[in-house]
Amino acid sequence: MDVEWTIGANDGGVARIRRDLHAHPELGYLEYRTAAKAASHLTRLGYGVKVGPDVMVAIEMLGAPTAAAVETARSAALAEGAPAEWVERMPNGQTGVVAELKRGAGPVLAFRFDMDALPIQETASAAHRPNQEGYRSRHDGVMHACAHDAHTAIGLAVAERLAHPAARWQGTLKLIFQPAEEAGRGAHPMVQAGVVDDVDHFFAGHLGCSVPSGTVAAEARGFLFARRSDAIFHGVAAHAAASPQAGSNALLAGATAALGLHAISRHAGAVTHVNVGRMVAGAGRNIIADHCLLQLEVRGDSQASLAFMNRRAEEVLAGAAVMHGCTLETKLMGQNVGAPNSAEAADIVAAVAGRTDGVDTVLPWHTMDGCDDATTMIRRVQERGGSGVYFIIGSDIANVHHAIDFDIDEAALDRGVRIFAGIAETVLAPR
Amino acid sequence: MDVEWTIGANDGGVARIRRDLHAHPELGYLEYRTAAKAASHLTRLGYGVKVGPDVMVAIEMLGAPTAAAVETARSAALAEGAPAEWVERMPNGQTGVVAELKRGAGPVLAFRFDMDALPIQETASAAHRPNQEGYRSRHDGVMHACAHDAHTAIGLAVAERLAHPAARWQGTLKLIFQPAEEAGRGAHPMVQAGVVDDVDHFFAGHLGCSVPSGTVAAEARGFLFARRSDAIFHGVAAHAAASPQAGSNALLAGATAALGLHAISRHAGAVTHVNVGRMVAGAGRNIIADHCLLQLEVRGDSQASLAFMNRRAEEVLAGAAVMHGCTLETKLMGQNVGAPNSAEAADIVAAVAGRTDGVDTVLPWHTMDGCDDATTMIRRVQERGGSGVYFIIGSDIANVHHAIDFDIDEAALDRGVRIFAGIAETVLAPR
Amino acid sequence: MDVEWTIGANDGGVARIRRDLHAHPELGYLEYRTAAKAASHLTRLGYGVKVGPDVMVAIEMLGAPTAAAVETARSAALAEGAPAEWVERMPNGQTGVVAELKRGAGPVLAFRFDMDALPIQETASAAHRPNQEGYRSRHDGVMHACAHDAHTAIGLAVAERLAHPAARWQGTLKLIFQPAEEAGRGAHPMVQAGVVDDVDHFFAGHLGCSVPSGTVAAEARGFLFARRSDAIFHGVAAHAAASPQAGSNALLAGATAALGLHAISRHAGAVTHVNVGRMVAGAGRNIIADHCLLQLEVRGDSQASLAFMNRRAEEVLAGAAVMHGCTLETKLMGQNVGAPNSAEAADIVAAVAGRTDGVDTVLPWHTMDGCDDATTMIRRVQERGGSGVYFIIGSDIANVHHAIDFDIDEAALDRGVRIFAGIAETVLAPR
Amino acid sequence: MDVEWTIGANDGGVARIRRDLHAHPELGYLEYRTAAKAASHLTRLGYGVKVGPDVMVAIEMLGAPTAAAVETARSAALAEGAPAEWVERMPNGQTGVVAELKRGAGPVLAFRFDMDALPIQETASAAHRPNQEGYRSRHDGVMHACAHDAHTAIGLAVAERLAHPAARWQGTLKLIFQPAEEAGRGAHPMVQAGVVDDVDHFFAGHLGCSVPSGTVAAEARGFLFARRSDAIFHGVAAHAAASPQAGSNALLAGATAALGLHAISRHAGAVTHVNVGRMVAGAGRNIIADHCLLQLEVRGDSQASLAFMNRRAEEVLAGAAVMHGCTLETKLMGQNVGAPNSAEAADIVAAVAGRTDGVDTVLPWHTMDGCDDATTMIRRVQERGGSGVYFIIGSDIANVHHAIDFDIDEAALDRGVRIFAGIAETVLAPR
Repeated sequence: MDVEWTIGANDGGVARIRRDLHAHPELGYLEYRTAAKAASHLTRLGYGVKVGPDVMVAIEMLGAPTAAAVETARSAALAEGAPAEWVERMPNGQTGVVAELKRGAGPVLAFRFDMDALPIQETASAAHRPNQEGYRSRHDGVMHACAHDAHTAIGLAVAERLAHPAARWQGTLKLIFQPAEEAGRGAHPMVQAGVVDDVDHFFAGHLGCSVPSGTVAAEARGFLFARRSDAIFHGVAAHAAASPQAGSNALLAGATAALGLHAISRHAGAVTHVNVGRMVAGAGRNIIADHCLLQLEVRGDSQASLAFMNRRAEEVLAGAAVMHGCTLETKLMGQNVGAPNSAEAADIVAAVAGRTDGVDTVLPWHTMDGCDDATTMIRRVQERGGSGVYFIIGSDIANVHHAIDFDIDEAALDRGVRIFAGIAETVLAPR
Repeated sequence: MDVEWTIGANDGGVARIRRDLHAHPELGYLEYRTAAKAASHLTRLGYGVKVGPDVMVAIEMLGAPTAAAVETARSAALAEGAPAEWVERMPNGQTGVVAELKRGAGPVLAFRFDMDALPIQETASAAHRPNQEGYRSRHDGVMHACAHDAHTAIGLAVAERLAHPAARWQGTLKLIFQPAEEAGRGAHPMVQAGVVDDVDHFFAGHLGCSVPSGTVAAEARGFLFARRSDAIFHGVAAHAAASPQAGSNALLAGATAALGLHAISRHAGAVTHVNVGRMVAGAGRNIIADHCLLQLEVRGDSQASLAFMNRRAEEVLAGAAVMHGCTLETKLMGQNVGAPNSAEAADIVAAVAGRTDGVDTVLPWHTMDGCDDATTMIRRVQERGGSGVYFIIGSDIANVHHAIDFDIDEAALDRGVRIFAGIAETVLAPR
Repeated sequence: MDVEWTIGANDGGVARIRRDLHAHPELGYLEYRTAAKAASHLTRLGYGVKVGPDVMVAIEMLGAPTAAAVETARSAALAEGAPAEWVERMPNGQTGVVAELKRGAGPVLAFRFDMDALPIQETASAAHRPNQEGYRSRHDGVMHACAHDAHTAIGLAVAERLAHPAARWQGTLKLIFQPAEEAGRGAHPMVQAGVVDDVDHFFAGHLGCSVPSGTVAAEARGFLFARRSDAIFHGVAAHAAASPQAGSNALLAGATAALGLHAISRHAGAVTHVNVGRMVAGAGRNIIADHCLLQLEVRGDSQASLAFMNRRAEEVLAGAAVMHGCTLETKLMGQNVGAPNSAEAADIVAAVAGRTDGVDTVLPWHTMDGCDDATTMIRRVQERGGSGVYFIIGSDIANVHHAIDFDIDEAALDRGVRIFAGIAETVLAPR
Repeated sequence: MDVEWTIGANDGGVARIRRDLHAHPELGYLEYRTAAKAASHLTRLGYGVKVGPDVMVAIEMLGAPTAAAVETARSAALAEGAPAEWVERMPNGQTGVVAELKRGAGPVLAFRFDMDALPIQETASAAHRPNQEGYRSRHDGVMHACAHDAHTAIGLAVAERLAHPAARWQGTLKLIFQPAEEAGRGAHPMVQAGVVDDVDHFFAGHLGCSVPSGTVAAEARGFLFARRSDAIFHGVAAHAAASPQAGSNALLAGATAALGLHAISRHAGAVTHVNVGRMVAGAGRNIIADHCLLQLEVRGDSQASLAFMNRRAEEVLAGAAVMHGCTLETKLMGQNVGAPNSAEAADIVAAVAGRTDGVDTVLPWHTMDGCDDATTMIRRVQERGGSGVYFIIGSDIANVHHAIDFDIDEAALDRGVRIFAGIAETVLAPR
């Protein structure tokens, strides 16, 4: 069930690693196989590797997994080939990995790659390439439907390429493999651990995002501010026929809230979003439901529009609880900030992409309706005097991100590797 | 973790068994520990015992459990002391047990006892006796909150008492231990297997039901017809911020349906009920939910009022799917019929109860707002010329049935045993 | 457009009056034509007639009409033949009429007849007899769909019959023509004016109610307690496209509340009802609605079950306001109490009905799922030592009460007259 | 109650007319007083004036008023000083007015001014200038809350100024006073009547729109495509307590639809809006509502995004009807198209505004989140080879458009007159 991760020259190794990752997707903070194998591989390549508490502050992990979930994930990872010595060094879902290589004096350059998958059941459709070619997710209900498998594979290939003696660069190279990007959770505890405090130049990229194969967008704009939370309605259980009037129906509170949340007014002057992505209520058919969990998020294109959405969401939740005689508990589970890209960093991407084989179009920017908590890292780097940018490596996609038949164009993988490597050889060009 | 189930004379053994069952509750069709221990015990007492396919037709099991759920339940039962030789004979959730004892010529008398528990998390309150006295449920999220632990314990004690040489009766005694009474599922496949086809006299009883300790109601009236189903909305997943408009939101379809179902008009001329007891939708916070399960039931005091509720429920579900661009799948999961009790059988209960120690009041009938699929057995017995009744053994209760702090008055247990035994000695009185 | 209201012997006069009233229906507290014509007619027959403030306390009139509505109704009534001298004596919607006739010493007997119609648009169906025979409602959107036209016509015919010298009775006869029975409003201010304080025997009746022609039910049971209120959500208007986020949407608050109200749990131990019968929200299509009116009622078969419904309704309304950032205003608009009928009064109805021509069946009681605020009068009479009953005069009906094609069997009219007259000749039998 | 509409030189006459209009607001297609007084005034000034069927095709009037509403509006207008000879020439709500003045050969220049008010109750706040200075709306529930009073007043002042012998222009001047701009109804039947078919240059403007006093935006961008419709749910009435189960509840269908419509997913790639601005359901408190009207609109920034919203709205409405056993009727009530402004026309606005006294800032464009069916006229003019633009005359406003305390800065009125006049003297500059 395991795959050799060495890449070698021009042998399609990036795709092989990506497919191995695709077949073994892991949810945020539970990327034990991915992170441990990456840590081991990077060590083998000569990088100094830090993981776990050294690169993540536990108390800053919003939406951290339960001990039981961690335990299950660790066991599964070990059973699927994760090196035990690295798994052991990642307690509590602290699955971040930071690899550093130093070649003489020079600036510090950081690349960020994200590793987590999504709680999605991959399609069984015969038209879906992972099904055709045998690398469909082996983890029921979990899927790499947002290309993080590709990102991690690119990161490992970039690591190998730049570790090669022939690579021409001088300074410090820092490769950050981040867990739990989905829902905006993993960057914050890494930033709090100081992971980017010494970084002069920061780059993160994403495949796809409606940018076609062969095109690169030097800058992703339109990053949204987001707030993710769990709302739990607590009601009172009762027999559904013998004494329904004695109950307080948390399921109806949740249903009312879900409708009310999605009915929050559009904003004429701002981009806003709301989603209740998951709802779980009640214990059994003939019992008035005494609990209901809503997993929700609101977004806005500014702190102000996010605040509008959040205020309205709080009203909706509070009112729904009152309506159905329930109490309401809410927990903050993740946050994203928007970020201004640094013009100089975007210029570097544009220049490198322009001379990269296989890239035929370079867009100055592309609007991305979404979030990526790499922005949290960019903000910190900028606050400390550095520069940062988030760019897009075009890839044709089979369906929109997060769809059950999402798939990328693997031809984009090598292009991605060449661009990151090119950025390193530009930013860290030997003087 | 195991308890000796022999009872002996006047030693509180019924309560001991009941507490053992209370501590090890099992959901419907998954009562492996309960059923296997009961089968073993009844065999030891000298009964001829049939289980599994011999007493249940698999194809008639509505809402049958998945193979995985069965496997988990069997392993857990074995780990908690269930005799393997009996567990092996109960494939596919066929956990019914029928014990028969024959003493000469005479009519066939059947008692029905139900064994299943509910998907409820038992309260952690220190005021709850199972917490005070150490027999709280050891199965997370499962609880005997409807007294079936008491029913099964009574049935085993009755079996022991009537198997004793001193017991005065003649004819055939049949003890039916039924799985999956909740949601009206277990009686039907047992009836289809012919379990009550030779029965002349049928009795089933329930503890509690708002009848106080010391009182017996010779007949429970007001049984409702019920229809239980699962509704699954299938939508289309999409990224909640990048392309929400590409999704079809099954969670909103489900929320709309839940509200619409509970808003079905009351019926001026009939007792009706509706409940969506469980709802599970969506995979993740930032994904438009592509599926939503509703577990629901409708009830009515006649076939006509049930049909009204069912027709309205179907309209609500169909419309909610259209509203949100989803498709709808529904599965019938259980059914109950109402039943007229046989006057002669009720008279026997009243007579026996009237001379039972500890019973100070005998009501001719008590109205029960609920269902019990013992009515399916009563109907069959009556169709074939026999008589049947469902009666209530009073017990003070700590809170309404299905509440997280439901508890019975254990003083009712011995009274229950004496009443069932008295019925046997009356109906099967030696000629 | 007017009709002679004298009746004469056996000439179908009751039906003629009933059809005149059917063609000129008037809403509660606006029965100016009906009440003024009745007052005039009763005076002509020799009764002492009191109206307006003499029989109704203005401040006790819940849901009283606006001055503009009163003015419109008075003008319309005058234009349709209402005698001005009586209209003038009925300010503020005080349209009650009490006619008294005294013949020597004896007890005081009161009959109650209700006069108001409903805000329903009568069907245009050719199969509807009022359309076939030309007495369809001439008032757009108003209809006698609950037989009050018949009740008033019967009352006037009874008045004529008992005023005849040949009528054999002794004592005091009091005929109460009550406005605004629908929504439980008109009885209370009449009771407060002392209208029934001297009454020894009280009788009120209703046609139809699922009791067929030829049958009389001596007692209507199952009267519900009811509470009627208006809820007004106040929001903030804004342009629906330029700045929807600046609005607070009262229409959505109202829609959420309406669904939540209808989804209030059924009560296993009680008959309950809830209805939002009218909702009016918003000013225009492209404006966020800044107001929403809900006209609602809750009912229960006891003070306790009514209190349950009312408490839940208040929670729903309050929560819906919070959900949508609105404020909530509520106004009590009407109330009904249940009432125990007096056995002796029911016995008189049964005896009289049993010897009335055209009555072939007398039921001891019939359950009526509804309200009639005659119960407020019965309660007061009983409190002061008298007796009272509400009975049902059977009539086949074309559809359920309040349907757009409701119609009665006019053959029931004369039977009704004979029963009321028979009651008078029994209760006030000359000694 | 009437006001002299002649303006004279520099005497504040525009504000006087605007205040007269503000005090007498009229809803769309019912602007009888406004249109008839304008027609009379323009005739007096020497314009050739056409009204009614000559400038509007009746059959093309979406959302036309009922005959009763027209009759009421005409009577009211006559009572408030509308000249009868003009009112008579405007049957069926055909209240459009087109005034033409020709001075020698030259191009045809058209200006569009809108006349209708909104169904809004003006605030009673003492801080509101119309209350302070006595020109508050005298029409209950109707208000000029979108500055059309100002537009019409400017149009009349422009007419007077350009009719003056001293005005320097040559060609044909066409002043279009359009009814029913709100909800996008009035332009279409005027276009169908050929009103702009000969126009070479077309200009329309709006006061306010978040552009401050002293600023002019040469072009309004962001016009939305819109579709306005009425949805009527037809159910079945029944008595709310005696037989609610016999009803089909149209009010609940409407409430469910309203929530579902507002919960239509935001679109990540487009600006969209939805509003149910008005809802009217049911007849009375104790009757199951048998009808429910929703007045709604959907908008999008392209035909495609409008089509998305419309498809979803249709699904929601159809599904809500199914859910509650109702039938659904829908009527198209109005439509708007977006329009590209003509660059040359915008350049003229910018040039004229730049040299107009009181204008200190000229913006090339301003985004307006809304609609104006002047775009229907612009499209037609462009299709036939002409040019057109919609521009914004800045005015500080007291609150957002359509708010109950909306008010303009009257200093903007004279600026508006000067700009329109300046445009005429530029476009129609004598050769």
